[in-house]
Amino acid sequence: MTVGELSEQEILRRIVVRTGTASAASVGPGDDAAVLRSSGDIVATTDTLVHGPDFRMAWSSGYDLGWKAAAVNLADVAAMGATPTALLVALAMPNATPIELVEAMADGLRDACDALAPGCAVVGGDLTVSATLTIAVTALGDLEGRAPVLRSGALADQTVAVAGELGHSGRGLRILFDRFRDADGEPVAVDPAALGEGERELLAAQLRPAPPLGLGPLAARAGATAMMDVSDGLVLDASRMARASGVAIALDSAALGPDISSALTGGEDHALLATFPDGALPPGFRAIGRTVEGEGVLLDGAPFEGRGGWDPYAEWDGVVG
Amino acid sequence: MTVGELSEQEILRRIVVRTGTASAASVGPGDDAAVLRSSGDIVATTDTLVHGPDFRMAWSSGYDLGWKAAAVNLADVAAMGATPTALLVALAMPNATPIELVEAMADGLRDACDALAPGCAVVGGDLTVSATLTIAVTALGDLEGRAPVLRSGALADQTVAVAGELGHSGRGLRILFDRFRDADGEPVAVDPAALGEGERELLAAQLRPAPPLGLGPLAARAGATAMMDVSDGLVLDASRMARASGVAIALDSAALGPDISSALTGGEDHALLATFPDGALPPGFRAIGRTVEGEGVLLDGAPFEGRGGWDPYAEWDGVVG
Repeated sequence: MTVGELSEQEILRRIVVRTGTASAASVGPGDDAAVLRSSGDIVATTDTLVHGPDFRMAWSSGYDLGWKAAAVNLADVAAMGATPTALLVALAMPNATPIELVEAMADGLRDACDALAPGCAVVGGDLTVSATLTIAVTALGDLEGRAPVLRSGALADQTVAVAGELGHSGRGLRILFDRFRDADGEPVAVDPAALGEGERELLAAQLRPAPPLGLGPLAARAGATAMMDVSDGLVLDASRMARASGVAIALDSAALGPDISSALTGGEDHALLATFPDGALPPGFRAIGRTVEGEGVLLDGAPFEGRGGWDPYAEWDGVVG
Repeated sequence: MTVGELSEQEILRRIVVRTGTASAASVGPGDDAAVLRSSGDIVATTDTLVHGPDFRMAWSSGYDLGWKAAAVNLADVAAMGATPTALLVALAMPNATPIELVEAMADGLRDACDALAPGCAVVGGDLTVSATLTIAVTALGDLEGRAPVLRSGALADQTVAVAGELGHSGRGLRILFDRFRDADGEPVAVDPAALGEGERELLAAQLRPAPPLGLGPLAARAGATAMMDVSDGLVLDASRMARASGVAIALDSAALGPDISSALTGGEDHALLATFPDGALPPGFRAIGRTVEGEGVLLDGAPFEGRGGWDPYAEWDGVVG
């Protein structure tokens, strides 16, 4: 059965029974707006997954899409040092979308919240029709009385640290592009039997990222001076933090694991990158370098010119799949 | 010049210089998330405009699209009795989108906030590429210590009132469909010279709705027992309020203006529908009926069976234009 064969109300009902309840919500889906308890300053962010540039149906299940749409937004909240409290989900879908895909998406949204940000859930949303499957999520978070941790707060001579994996998601994407396309370059379904154990983890990092987001508020309490999530690759995001803070970030290649190139330029890991005064590194973060006077990103003391990242307008080839 | 010829950063820069600053924002665009001052409970809602089902480029300018995307969301916030504080805007656009359209959209977003909800502005967003131009807006609002006004709070024997026009937007849409399509049914540009004065107002109500949203918080302070925005036509939305509240809503046709049919079933007005104890009607609201024991919507004492409303999955004909 497809969404075109069901009423908007029935589709909504099937989503809402799956998405659970946010502990901060006193009014959830069903009124003009959700109502959320707030103890003070909040953070808000939005990020969209679009069929074509952001995912291929041959590679991602509905569950994967729901999970990833939640995770990438929850990461932005956690990277401010805030605790995620609520998601709003705007779904625009072709009439031919199977309702099972929508239900799986709802399951993925809920499970990502439960796994990465317990207490957070979908509190509202919007359903409409579109020629292009589009999942626009807004995430809200509570700073619980703390100041936000901005990307501009790093001082020279501090520890640069990361929580979560670097490069795994990008390596997972490369596996998909290299091995799961047909002769015409069209995406084909992943054969799990064709994957080694480590490769399964890399694919999961790409399709269902699970960065340790509870460490965001922990880092804030530990005195992180700057923080951001690594969505465009370590080098590009570190260069943004360096520029915003007016320092250079000197990375130590020995701390970046065996695949240094992927760790430096692979995107979509959503790990947390943060700077701390010496001695303040909280559990779960590992040092990967230091801030120093200057600008840009250094690797083992020398300026690093590669950048990574992905510009959707310049780089999408138009393939949908 | 098109968005495909510009970098994401340059597109963002051109938007942000236009969208202004929300008075509640202590951190705006540029970090992982926006930071908003909040004095207590907040409301949050999201609504999307999709090219095809929701707008036609021949009829709507970029400015219209930005304005309407803001207005429909601000109305949902005001209908809770909250004061809108911030918008997040997720834009997914084809590479061929002219940058002037994006800039005009940013102008429209800002002007709608300034006109309908002063102090509110765009605090964050997301840019990505898509085959389908999609504008997903999330609006946040502050309850300023008040309880939210739900659609479920109406009691029997109260005044039913509305602030804003009813049926104008639907009549405007009918003018577009009836008179500004070519022989193949494709939308063509509106010739202003072909419109009478009153017709220009109807088109503006459809393309740039301007409901009196400041009356939402005013109604809450005046003791409104239920409130919602009229987005799917008066009858359908009143029937939702009636069902949620466990009452019937008895409308008085003499209060609905000369085009009663449009007032009852035309959509997209985003007027505020509210119920008040007798004697509590605040300025700007006009009585259109009463709540009574029972269920459903009555017109001049008889059950009204028409409904209006629009189901995007069942009713979009696939035309883009």
